[in-house]
Amino acid sequence: MARTDIARRVYNHAWKLDPIIRSLLDTDFYKLLMLQMIWGLYRDVDVTFSLINRKKTVRLADEIDEQELRAQLDHARTLRFSKKEMIWLAGNTFYGRKHIFQPEFLEWLQDFQLPDYELTRKNGQYELHFYGPWIYTTMWEIPALAIINELRSRAAMKNMGRFALDVLYARAKAKMWSKVERLQKLPDLRISDFGTRRRHSFLWQRWCVEALKEGIGEAFTGTSNVLHAMNLDLEALGTNAHELPMVIAALAKTDKELRSAPYRVMQDWNRYYGGNLLVVLPDAFGTDAFLHNAPGWVADWTGFRPDSAPPVEGGEKIIRWWLEHGKKPQEKILIFSDALDVDTIEKTYRHFEGRVKMSFGWGTNLTNDFAGCAPQKNSGLDAISLVCKVTHANGRPAVKLSDNLQKATGEPEEIERYIKFFGNSERIDKPIKV
Amino acid sequence: MARTDIARRVYNHAWKLDPIIRSLLDTDFYKLLMLQMIWGLYRDVDVTFSLINRKKTVRLADEIDEQELRAQLDHARTLRFSKKEMIWLAGNTFYGRKHIFQPEFLEWLQDFQLPDYELTRKNGQYELHFYGPWIYTTMWEIPALAIINELRSRAAMKNMGRFALDVLYARAKAKMWSKVERLQKLPDLRISDFGTRRRHSFLWQRWCVEALKEGIGEAFTGTSNVLHAMNLDLEALGTNAHELPMVIAALAKTDKELRSAPYRVMQDWNRYYGGNLLVVLPDAFGTDAFLHNAPGWVADWTGFRPDSAPPVEGGEKIIRWWLEHGKKPQEKILIFSDALDVDTIEKTYRHFEGRVKMSFGWGTNLTNDFAGCAPQKNSGLDAISLVCKVTHANGRPAVKLSDNLQKATGEPEEIERYIKFFGNSERIDKPIKV
Repeated sequence: MARTDIARRVYNHAWKLDPIIRSLLDTDFYKLLMLQMIWGLYRDVDVTFSLINRKKTVRLADEIDEQELRAQLDHARTLRFSKKEMIWLAGNTFYGRKHIFQPEFLEWLQDFQLPDYELTRKNGQYELHFYGPWIYTTMWEIPALAIINELRSRAAMKNMGRFALDVLYARAKAKMWSKVERLQKLPDLRISDFGTRRRHSFLWQRWCVEALKEGIGEAFTGTSNVLHAMNLDLEALGTNAHELPMVIAALAKTDKELRSAPYRVMQDWNRYYGGNLLVVLPDAFGTDAFLHNAPGWVADWTGFRPDSAPPVEGGEKIIRWWLEHGKKPQEKILIFSDALDVDTIEKTYRHFEGRVKMSFGWGTNLTNDFAGCAPQKNSGLDAISLVCKVTHANGRPAVKLSDNLQKATGEPEEIERYIKFFGNSERIDKPIKV
Repeated sequence: MARTDIARRVYNHAWKLDPIIRSLLDTDFYKLLMLQMIWGLYRDVDVTFSLINRKKTVRLADEIDEQELRAQLDHARTLRFSKKEMIWLAGNTFYGRKHIFQPEFLEWLQDFQLPDYELTRKNGQYELHFYGPWIYTTMWEIPALAIINELRSRAAMKNMGRFALDVLYARAKAKMWSKVERLQKLPDLRISDFGTRRRHSFLWQRWCVEALKEGIGEAFTGTSNVLHAMNLDLEALGTNAHELPMVIAALAKTDKELRSAPYRVMQDWNRYYGGNLLVVLPDAFGTDAFLHNAPGWVADWTGFRPDSAPPVEGGEKIIRWWLEHGKKPQEKILIFSDALDVDTIEKTYRHFEGRVKMSFGWGTNLTNDFAGCAPQKNSGLDAISLVCKVTHANGRPAVKLSDNLQKATGEPEEIERYIKFFGNSERIDKPIKV
C-alpha cells in the first residue's frame, strides 16, 4: 500500500474549486427562524442586503481575487437543501420544541436557492449587493460573510510554507485550548458558538466547536451554525436579528409606525415562537429609547440580548428596567454577544454571578483569533469588522443605530433623522474591534 | 473517491506492531565512528551494556508492557543496513571528509545485526542487559533507549482521546516554536540535535529537527541522528562517548594503565580521525584529574565537550587550562551537551560570546519537552533520566564518575576506588533533571 493515496493526490491537484459553502445549512439558525416568519408575513417585501467593511484600511478588493470570489458565490448559488437536511429540520427538536418549522414552509424551503448578486469594485473595496424579495436576500448574509472572510484567510496563507502553516494552527489550537481552560473555571457558565460569519474557515470553526464540546461539556450550550449543530449533535441556537426592526422601521409611513416598529416585530415573533425564543434585541435604534417606549408586556419576555452596549453597563440597565417592572432578574436571562473574549466573559460572568441568568454568544474571538499565531507577522489573518446589512426595504432606506454610533449603518441623513427621532441618550462612540 | 482510504484503514487496523526502530541508521552518528575504531582495535573485547533508570520513582516495568518491549527489541534485531543506507555511508561527506568509513569496515557492517538481549523484571524496573563482543553490544545503546522512551510515551497517551492528542501536539509544537524564536535572537549560534535517545517519539524528533532547520537556518548545524541526517540532508554530528575511556580503564591492569586510559583512547582516536573530530570528552573520571594528568598534546585538540559540569564553570575551567597551555580560546571550540534548554543555552552563549567558539548539542529538552502540554496532567510524558551504560568489559567492572556524582555509574566499591584514584576535586553532587 502506497504512503500517498494517488487518487486523492490527483483529485486534490485537479481541484477547480475548494468550496467554502457546501450546504445551505451552513448558516446561522436565527436566519431560518426569521425566514419562516418573513415567509409568513412579509413575503412580498423587497429587501436589499449590502456588504459593509467597517475596516476601511483593509482593501478587500486588493486582498481577494474577484474571480475566486465570484466562483465561491456562484457555487453557493448551486446549493439546495438535501433530503437529509430537510428531514433533520423537520424532525429535530429546537429549543425543546418539536416541529418548529411548519410543513408548508419546509415545502417551500426545499426548492430554496440563493438569489443573484451584484459585485463591483470601488476604491479597493468590493460593493456587494443582494436585491430582491426579503425571503431570498436574507439568506445571503451569513454565506456571503463566511466566503469573504475565508477567502481573505486563504489569501493571507497562500505564501506560507507547510511548516509555517503547521506552526500557525498549532499555536491557534494551543491558544484556543488555554481559553477553554479559563472557561472551565466558571462553574455555571453557559456559552455558545456565534462565530460562523467571522470565522477564519469552516474547518477551523468546527475545530473550535469541538474544542468547546470536549473542554467545557455541559457549559457549552450549542452553536448558531445549523450544519455544525446537525453534524455534531449539538443544539442549534439563536433567535432574531436587527434586520427585523430595521425593515419594519424602514417601511413605516408615520412616526407612530416608526416608534412602534420594534414592538410590532416582537408581537409577530411571539405569534411564531415562544418560551426561550422570546429574547429581546433592544438596541436596533438604541436601548434607552427602546426601554422608554416599551409596552409593559416586553418585561414578560424571557430575556434580553444587549448587542452593542458594554456588557456590564448594558446588563445593569436592563436589570434596573426589569426591577422597575416588578420582574425578578434571577428568573430572566441576559445573552451577551458583542465583541466577547475570555477577559470580557470572565468579567461579565463575575459581575452578574447569582443576580441574573446569563448566556454568552461567542463570535469572532472564538472562531477567528489568530493574533500572534503566524511565524511571520501577517495582518491578513486579523479578523475585520465586516457585516452584511439591510440597506433598503421596498426602496426605502434602512437604518441601524445601535448603542454604539460606530456600529450605525444607513445613509447619513437617515441616521440623523433616526437619532433625532429615537434620541441619543447614553449612546457611546467607541471604536469597533471586531 | 472515498474520504477514507480503505486499504490504509484496514492496514492500520491490522497492525501487529508499529515499529519504533525501522532502520539501523536510526542511531547516533558517534556510535558508527566509535564502532569503526572498536572494530579496528578492540574487536575481541566483550562489553556489557545495561539499562539504568536513574529516576527510580518511575516504575518502568509497571508503565511499559513487557510483551510490547520484547516485540520492539525483537523487531530491531531483524534489521540490517539497507543498500541505500550503505551507499550513503560510503558516499557521504562527514565533517568535511569523504570516505570516513573504511571499505573493510563497511563490508563487515552490511551484515551487522543487533545481538540478543536479556530482559527481566525487578522491583518494578526492567533489568535489560546486552552481553557479548563490544562491536555488537555498543550498537544497542541508542535503539534500546529510544524504544523504552517511546513505549513509555505511547503508554502515557494510550487513554487520551483524539482531541486531547490534538491539543497535546498543538501545544508541544507551539512550545517548541517559541524556543526557536528565542534562539533566532542569538546571532552566531551553532546548535544541533542530540535528542535521539531521549526522544518522545521518532516522528516528534523529526518534527523538532525540521523546526530547527526551518526556524534558525544556518545556525542549525545538524543532527546526531544518522537516519534524520540522511533523510533531511543534514550534517550527521557527534564524535565519541564515555564508553571508550570506561572500557579501556576497566581493562587496565596497573595504576599506570588506569591513569593513562583516557589519553590512550584519544591517541587511538587520533589515528582514526582528525580535524573537527578531535573533541575531548574530559569528564569520564572527573575533569580536574583529566586536566591535571593530561599530556601537552591534549591542548592541540580542536575542542572540549564538558558533559556533566555546569556549562559556565566547566567552560571557564577549560579556557583557563588552554590559556595555561598557551592556546587561544578564540580558536578552540566548547561543545555543551548536558541538560540544555533555551535558558541555559542563552545564558551560556551570552557568557562566552566572543571569547571561544561554541556549539550546543541539544538533547532531551529538544525532543521530549511535553511539560504542561497535555490537557490533563500526565506525568508519563515527563522525560526521565534513562541511560544505557557499559557495566563490564571482559568481565571486569566498568565505572563512570563524571563531574556530577549523581551521574556516576558502576559498582559502589569500584566507584570508591576510582574516586580515591582520580581524586574528588571540584566534583559536584547535583540532582539530575534529564
